[in-house]
Amino acid sequence: MIVARFHHNLTLFSSPPPPSIKSKRLRPPVVSSMSSSPPRPFLEFPYLSASHRNLMFSLFSSIETRLAPDLLPSSLPPDVQYFESATGSSKGTLDILEGKEGSKVDFILGSWIHCDLPTGSSLDITTLFAFLSTATDAPHLLLEFIQSSPTSLILIIDLLPRKDLVLHPEYLQTFYESTQLEKQRQSLSKLSEVKPFLSSSLYIRSVLSPTALSISINCGSEEGARRLEELVEGHLNGVAKQIVQIWLDGCACGEEREVGEDERRVLIKRDNLVKRKAVEIDLAANLPRLFGEEIAGRVVAAIQKVFGV
Amino acid sequence: MIVARFHHNLTLFSSPPPPSIKSKRLRPPVVSSMSSSPPRPFLEFPYLSASHRNLMFSLFSSIETRLAPDLLPSSLPPDVQYFESATGSSKGTLDILEGKEGSKVDFILGSWIHCDLPTGSSLDITTLFAFLSTATDAPHLLLEFIQSSPTSLILIIDLLPRKDLVLHPEYLQTFYESTQLEKQRQSLSKLSEVKPFLSSSLYIRSVLSPTALSISINCGSEEGARRLEELVEGHLNGVAKQIVQIWLDGCACGEEREVGEDERRVLIKRDNLVKRKAVEIDLAANLPRLFGEEIAGRVVAAIQKVFGV
Repeated sequence: MIVARFHHNLTLFSSPPPPSIKSKRLRPPVVSSMSSSPPRPFLEFPYLSASHRNLMFSLFSSIETRLAPDLLPSSLPPDVQYFESATGSSKGTLDILEGKEGSKVDFILGSWIHCDLPTGSSLDITTLFAFLSTATDAPHLLLEFIQSSPTSLILIIDLLPRKDLVLHPEYLQTFYESTQLEKQRQSLSKLSEVKPFLSSSLYIRSVLSPTALSISINCGSEEGARRLEELVEGHLNGVAKQIVQIWLDGCACGEEREVGEDERRVLIKRDNLVKRKAVEIDLAANLPRLFGEEIAGRVVAAIQKVFGV
Repeated sequence: MIVARFHHNLTLFSSPPPPSIKSKRLRPPVVSSMSSSPPRPFLEFPYLSASHRNLMFSLFSSIETRLAPDLLPSSLPPDVQYFESATGSSKGTLDILEGKEGSKVDFILGSWIHCDLPTGSSLDITTLFAFLSTATDAPHLLLEFIQSSPTSLILIIDLLPRKDLVLHPEYLQTFYESTQLEKQRQSLSKLSEVKPFLSSSLYIRSVLSPTALSISINCGSEEGARRLEELVEGHLNGVAKQIVQIWLDGCACGEEREVGEDERRVLIKRDNLVKRKAVEIDLAANLPRLFGEEIAGRVVAAIQKVFGV
């Protein structure tokens, strides 16, 4: 949810609240979590199209499966794992798995939000942060998919640099140039329905890498929904999986990286700033409008606790 | 010239050299430099269209006039101030004014290159770096205009951050958010002829700020040349002047900035990396192809001397 910060939502959501919409009952989870732990609402994605849901599920599963040995079970209370607004028009889930002490994983945070908009359409935002610990300085992973109509999709997939790339060209070389991430970005960017997407927050723009896939896909009206499905299945699917694979192989499970004491201090400061800004720019600014102060407060507090900020 | 790095040029210039083209004789300079010093070929811009030339001249003059008290006279030898290839198909100028000891100016570097291409069209690249010293940590200024046909133009105008913006949100606030540079970027970006331009070098992308105006303008064929002139006069002119004014007021001549010893060390390292990469990525890679080894070597050496790298 970090990158969303849609100004147009400000307008949509400052309109009078829509008439209460009966919540779709959440279907049974399509997957139980890694072990025999309780159902996880996050993994259901009940509001996405089939191709979009399959992609999301596949991405998150591949990360969880690969990092399983490093992860602790979720400790979030049920009312933070799933929450909805008083009117029922906004629904949200949060799923956080923290890394074990000493592992390379700080946490994996997954979330989706579904909102029925006053306009009759709906907004779906699905987010994944996979943050690494200071046992490594390798990039974090960010995925965000924002869909506000059946024919359009905004998406951001990036390996977030944890160092100043201008001051550390060798870091740029290791994680961005030699991994050929630019090829992945280009293969989607060349499609005629695709345009670059720039966050309205200059801080968020600064956080992204030079190979960030940050695009909006617009397939027009009517026939567009089918075309969008095709693009998700035929193009996005492969690119997103490749990028996640590059992150898993080269960052989360890559070669050991030596992190000196001074470096670690800067890394902690930088990581904390990114987390604090994510909460400040996005969550604290948007969640209360969607879910009311009380629920938003509870969810933000749970995130802040894991973020340590 | 830093940002150009056109891969298509690699193809153009690796073709057999074009038949020698008689050099246009350089007209008398339209301006003498600040004092009664010798003519400066750089300030002539003989190959640009009227609106483009006027804009360039105006931008460079406004910077030189404002910073005059801090500048030393040019000490470049004539064969570096103006140079052309053996065949005469490539011509170039370089103009460097270094800042006085203790001033906030490191140097101002201006340059243009004109090449008659084997295709019959020509390529014009005009560049300005205005780099500040470590008496301040305020951003440098970069302007680059690349024209490879009468109907299209690529341009990059940016205040180059001298700090990691993720680690220094207050720096982002001071120089980028509160100066509303984003408005300038947006006012050009919304034109239908304008598309974002991404350098092929990931390092150059990393050097740019989140409000960098980095665009290509394409006005199609035939009628396009007139439309491009209109855009340069009616839109680009105002935006470019505004950005340069923001830089002059807020950076080169802005409030004093305290730079501690540790900070200064990082600043020197970062500035030097940017300069070294600029030479490596762009000049050392492209100038020999355009002007031959000997001339390119002379020009690059003069730049390296001023860069101190």
